[in-house]
Order: sequence, then C-alpha cells, then structure tokens
Amino acid sequence: MAAEQDPEGRAAARPLLTDLYQATMALGYWRAGRARDAAEFELFFRRCPFGGAFALAAGLRDCVRFLRAFRLRDADVQFLASVLPPDTDPAFFEHLRALDCSEVTVRALPEGSLAFPGVPLLQVSGPLLVVQLLETPLLCLVSYASLVATNAARLRLIAGPEKRLLEMGLRRAQGPDGGLTASTYSYLGGFDSSSNVLAGQLRGVPVAGTLAHSFVTSFSGSELPPDPMLVPAAGEGPGVDLAAKAQVWLERVCAHLGLGVQEPHPGERAAFVAYALAFPRAFQGLLDSYSVRRSGLPNFLAVSLALGELGYRAVGVRLDSGDLLQQAQEIRQVFRTIAAQFQVPWLESVSIAVSNNIDEEALMQLAQEGSEVNVIGIGTSVVTCPQQPSLGCVYKLVAVGGQPRMKLTEDPEKQTLPGSKAAFRLLGSDAV
Amino acid sequence: MAAEQDPEGRAAARPLLTDLYQATMALGYWRAGRARDAAEFELFFRRCPFGGAFALAAGLRDCVRFLRAFRLRDADVQFLASVLPPDTDPAFFEHLRALDCSEVTVRALPEGSLAFPGVPLLQVSGPLLVVQLLETPLLCLVSYASLVATNAARLRLIAGPEKRLLEMGLRRAQGPDGGLTASTYSYLGGFDSSSNVLAGQLRGVPVAGTLAHSFVTSFSGSELPPDPMLVPAAGEGPGVDLAAKAQVWLERVCAHLGLGVQEPHPGERAAFVAYALAFPRAFQGLLDSYSVRRSGLPNFLAVSLALGELGYRAVGVRLDSGDLLQQAQEIRQVFRTIAAQFQVPWLESVSIAVSNNIDEEALMQLAQEGSEVNVIGIGTSVVTCPQQPSLGCVYKLVAVGGQPRMKLTEDPEKQTLPGSKAAFRLLGSDAV
Repeated sequence: MAAEQDPEGRAAARPLLTDLYQATMALGYWRAGRARDAAEFELFFRRCPFGGAFALAAGLRDCVRFLRAFRLRDADVQFLASVLPPDTDPAFFEHLRALDCSEVTVRALPEGSLAFPGVPLLQVSGPLLVVQLLETPLLCLVSYASLVATNAARLRLIAGPEKRLLEMGLRRAQGPDGGLTASTYSYLGGFDSSSNVLAGQLRGVPVAGTLAHSFVTSFSGSELPPDPMLVPAAGEGPGVDLAAKAQVWLERVCAHLGLGVQEPHPGERAAFVAYALAFPRAFQGLLDSYSVRRSGLPNFLAVSLALGELGYRAVGVRLDSGDLLQQAQEIRQVFRTIAAQFQVPWLESVSIAVSNNIDEEALMQLAQEGSEVNVIGIGTSVVTCPQQPSLGCVYKLVAVGGQPRMKLTEDPEKQTLPGSKAAFRLLGSDAV
Repeated sequence: MAAEQDPEGRAAARPLLTDLYQATMALGYWRAGRARDAAEFELFFRRCPFGGAFALAAGLRDCVRFLRAFRLRDADVQFLASVLPPDTDPAFFEHLRALDCSEVTVRALPEGSLAFPGVPLLQVSGPLLVVQLLETPLLCLVSYASLVATNAARLRLIAGPEKRLLEMGLRRAQGPDGGLTASTYSYLGGFDSSSNVLAGQLRGVPVAGTLAHSFVTSFSGSELPPDPMLVPAAGEGPGVDLAAKAQVWLERVCAHLGLGVQEPHPGERAAFVAYALAFPRAFQGLLDSYSVRRSGLPNFLAVSLALGELGYRAVGVRLDSGDLLQQAQEIRQVFRTIAAQFQVPWLESVSIAVSNNIDEEALMQLAQEGSEVNVIGIGTSVVTCPQQPSLGCVYKLVAVGGQPRMKLTEDPEKQTLPGSKAAFRLLGSDAV
C-alpha cells in the first residue's frame, strides 16, 4: 500500500477514530488485570437492509488495512491522557503505546459475498483490551460499505445486466471519503463506473462523465475559439472549421425536424462545438439546458453530423430533467430517421444517458423492456441509501477465556447468542 | 493548520475529489480559449431540509482549507491524462499543473448562520476553468455539513436547552470522515459532545462516553483484580477492598428494594467494581445488560454507595433498551428513596443517560416536562439524517464575463435565476 497515494487510508487507519467509551473500557480492563484475556467478538446485523432478503459483506479490505496499521502514536496517547482521569497510572499509557494487532485474528466473509442476519461478517479474536478498542472503527468500516454495496446490488438487479450504471453521488455524500467509500462499494455491488476521479486514482474504479449545464450556459455563441479547425479522424487532409460545418448541418437538421434555424440556442451550439473540438472521438451532448426538442437535440445532431463528415462518431447524449423515458424514446426515433435521411447508420446507436434523482421506482421504469435508455446515472439514491441510511451492524462479545458470553437487555431483540459461531448454507437437492 | 495532525484534511484537500466531467469540461474550456474567462457560481439549496423552515450553513472552514491547499500534483495530472484522450495537447496539462485558487474569491454565509432556499451559501468567482473544477468538492464539503448541522439544531430545539445531547453515530456514518464530519457539525448545530475521539483530537469537539455491554458481560464475577484496594477520595487513610465493601452495601440495597441478594448478576457487579477502580471520580453504570431493576440498578447502587463511603460520588447511569422514559422515572425515584434511606443526598442527582435509536419523536417524549432523563445519546438519527439524507445543494453558473447566465431545462423547478445575488433579511417593526 502506497501511503503517499492514499492519505484517506491513513485517516481511516487512525486508532482514535473510535468512541471514547472504548478507551474508558480499555482502562477498566487494564485496571482489572484483564487487558490480555482472550476474547472473541462477532460483527453482524440483525435484519437485512431495505426490507430485502440479503446483504453484501463489504469493507474487509479497509478493515485489514486498518488493523495492519493500528498503532497509537505519541500524540494519540497524549490526547487520551487529556480526556482520562489525571491520576491514571502511567503504566496504562505505556501499555497503549505498545499495542498493535499482531495478536488479533480475524475470520471474515469474503469481500462481496452474500450475508444474512445473525451470521458474523467478522469474527475478531485476541486480547480483550485491543479487540474492544477495534469495535467502533470496524463497525464504521463495514456497516456503510456493506449497506451501499447492497444498495448498489439491488439497483443492479432492477436495472438488469444490460444497462450501464454510473455512480455520481460524491456531492451528496458525507464528506470526502463518504464519497470515496460510496464509489468504491457501489462498484463492488455492481455499478459499472463512478464519476469520482479520486475513486479512480486510489481504488481503481472505472471513471466516467459527460458535461454539466454550466459548460453549456457559459457560452453565448459570440465566443471565438483560438483554433476552430479540426483535422479529419484519419489524420489526413486539411483542417475544417467545425463551427461553420455545424452551421451548415443545422439548416438541414432543422428543415428535417420542422424547426426554424434560429430556434436552437447559439450558445449551446458553441458549447457543443467547443466540447467536440476537445473530444472529437468522444463527443457527448447534454441536451436540456434550454429545450431538448427545439435546441439541445438539433444542436447535438448538427455537431455530430459535422463530426461524422470528418470521420468521427459522437458517443452519447444526456438528459437531466423531464420525463426521461419518454424523451429517450423520442430521441432514439429522431436518431433513426436522421440516420436514414443522411445515411449515417452509426447515429442510431448513440448512447442515451439519463440522470435526475433516480430511485428504485424510477429505475424500474427506465429499465423496462423497450426502453431506449443505455446509461443511468444515480447519485443520491445510491450514496445516501434513503430507504434505510444505516445497516445497524453490531459488534458483540461472544466469548472470554473460552467461556461464552451473552447479554439479555430489556429488548428481547437485542439479546445476543453466546459463543463463537460457524455458519453453513445448506442447499436442497433442487438447488441450481 | 497542522497538516500532520490532520491527514483527513489532506484527503479533503485533494483536487481529484471531483466528478470526471469537471475535468472534461476543463479541457473543453481550455480548448475554447476560455479557461481564464471571469465566472461566478452560486452554491445554494432549493428547499429547506426535513420539511422545515431553515437550514444552518456549515462547512465553510473545510472549504477554505480545501481552496488554500488546492494544487494538482504530478500524480494527479498523470491520472487525469490517463482518462482524457491520448492526443490531448500537453499544454493543457501544463495549465493544470500551474493552477491554484489565488485568483478565486469566495463570499459566504458565516459558519453556522441561518440559510434559506435560493440564498447562496457560497458565491465563488474567478477564472472559469478553476471555479468549474471546484464544483464537486465544494458541494461535497458544504451539503452534508449543512444538513447534519441543521439536523442537530432541530434535535436541539426539540430537546430544549437543558438536556445534554451526545452525538454517538461514528459507527453508522459513511466511513471514517463521514463520522468526523458528522461529529464536527453536530456540535456546531447544538450538541454538547461527541463520542468520537478523533473529532476531539482534530476538531476540538468535547468528547464523552460511558461503557458498553461488552465490558459488563466480559466479567463473570470470578475475576480477581490485581489490586482491589481503593484509597479514600481525600487521599488519606488506608485503601479499602471496594468489591468487599460493595458486597456489604448490596445486602442493604437488596433488603431495601425487596430483592434477593443472589439476584443481581455477580459479573455485572464485578464489571462495575472494575470500572469504579479505574474511574473512582467518574463512575458510571450501564444498567441493562441483564435486568435493570433486578440486577443493574442494585449493582450500581451497591458500588456507588461503597464509593460514597470513601468520599467519591458516582456520576451517572445509562439505559440502552426498553421504555427509556419510564425507566428513568423509576430509577430517579429509587435514587431518591435510597438517598433518603442512607443519607447520601448527592445520589438524587446522579445523571441518567439514555440511548437506543432515538429519533425526533422519541426525543420529544424524552424531553417532555418532568422527564428525569439528563443526557440523550443520539447516533443514527443525527448522523444519517434518515428523514432526508441529502440536502441537495447545487452550484450554478450565474455570470460569465459580467453577463448573467441561466438554464431553463425541462423542469421549471430546476431553472436558475441569472446574475449575482445579494440577499437581505428584512425585519418588521415587531421583530425582536
């Protein structure tokens, strides 16, 4: 692990990322002479999230990284000393300074495997004091990772195998590595890619993106690009003024669509030309900055057909408002008639991406048979898991010194099952 | 700012914590010769969260830290080059390498101030390319911080000024600094303290905590502490065997409460003794590991009265299951009768803390007049904001080169109001 490449990993690895009571209990164990008693904890959840029938276990890699790096630095111990009683025996702090996880054993469900209520995701055994200290960070690293992976898997099941799912929730996440965790584990759960560049850099998640309305609206149409010329895709022949060529195509497209040539917004067209000059082999258009039908679509077609004349093929459009399914059907129809009219068959299969607060219900609609949507961008719904924003994992002591332990409490549901567990999945003879 | 003390701050400060389309648009602007056009964006929300009438603006400090540190390192530029077209002009990457925020101006609502729909929390102006790149990280740093601060403020308004509110949601947060952000901004919103030790160390949030069931259930009662003796609070006189003294008090307490002396769990009592030996001036008991009335309460009283004899005063109990309000009333009543019976008046005012999935509705009940609850620990409900887990802030271009900009879109609600804003709050003559 390259530490310099991964400062958030270092943040995650800080032992003080824990609840204060873990430290007070550590002192209690130490004072009772029990710091090194052999203990075993199990980390599990009591109910599947989202009213579903499964969860995906996730976060193990982060846990292992955390455990490997677990060491209290001087500054950490000093901070703990500042919040513990002033007359605490200095030998306790010496004990903390020497702690690591070299005597801790973790058994775990593999990253991404199916998990069920009561079955431990992690079984953590080792000296009582240290495995107690690990409770909060392990819960923090496993709970949300498993929740968002499960959520992503549910969305994938709804979308079916063909639709491409893009996670784009960084701006809605709980701060920087809320977003990083979300991107990492949405990918584990079945998304194809993320908009989050840092997740690409640090976690190897494929990154994807289009353009935003601000890019489109930043152009008025009066801008003069320093170099408006584009060389044909084959690399031979003189450069062509893309804006001028798009203007020519705009007239043909508007005539075909029954629109006045003044209707499409000139700023939007200038933005598309600018984007196409930067990405001639990956041109995409965001169609709804002004009006999809009267502006975004004809402008996109004009630029795409101009590119096409130079041997380039536009790759996609995005819609971010209105009735996404209906618009996708209409746009595909226009692509088909334009493809036939101007003999550019590749235009038929230009990708249609949609976004705009897509939840499970909206996704079901967008993924229905015959839908012309190809890419679905989901942000808030995958990252914040609004149906149930917490998995509610717990970390419970099940044995000390080989003796089983349980708690009873005032809520029967919160009682624990004592002793170390082994889980089996039994399949009937009719199982596939 | 001490960088070494704050690696999560460094993670937050990474410019690649952004959506890929910001980078593709950056190339588009650059190719169009518009990288340095003067632009202004506004960051705002469209509706108050939780169906309420206000939000608190938060996250400004993190934004300022991010902007001050904003610099693309070689590795960042190399990663961007790997996801942009291979024939991209190298001069673009030179431009990125030289970027910083020295020409960016931010006007902002002060940290913690009231915010309303449409009124910008941030107004960001500067060169178009760089202020575009800032969109995602600024949204990420402001949206959740403001959401959780607002949520905390609502919980504080429900709880009233007297109840102490403890944020304890680290284990339910979106990874390590989801928890750190939650703790920081719950405190800003009106909580008294957090269980999150790292928030204490890095952000100066007061930390607090009690003990967990695992501590209690880890003791069977047969353990022999290496040093069972406790010196009186005054520091004079011989040490006393606290466990033996608690046993004596247990008989008196059980007689008073009409319980058999065998009923309270000996392991729970041993745990309380161990905790009291470590924290004689800050003894707290978690009462519901077995049975509050028949075990936790008498054990707590026995240890507290033994401590009291040595001049120490127990500080609190915690309940984590069952009917919290009802149990608090009963426990306070027992405290009062025991205080009178054994002439220990301080026992009457021992703090009663409660936790267990407390949401706004449960909090309203616990905060009602006459409630004997003093401290309320809230985790999931404050950290995940389940009523609305995302504020939905947006960052919209309002002017380029001094000219106003707007988008229309297919949803009237998503239209933007062009031009730079100035917000005024006008108070009527009857305003206080």
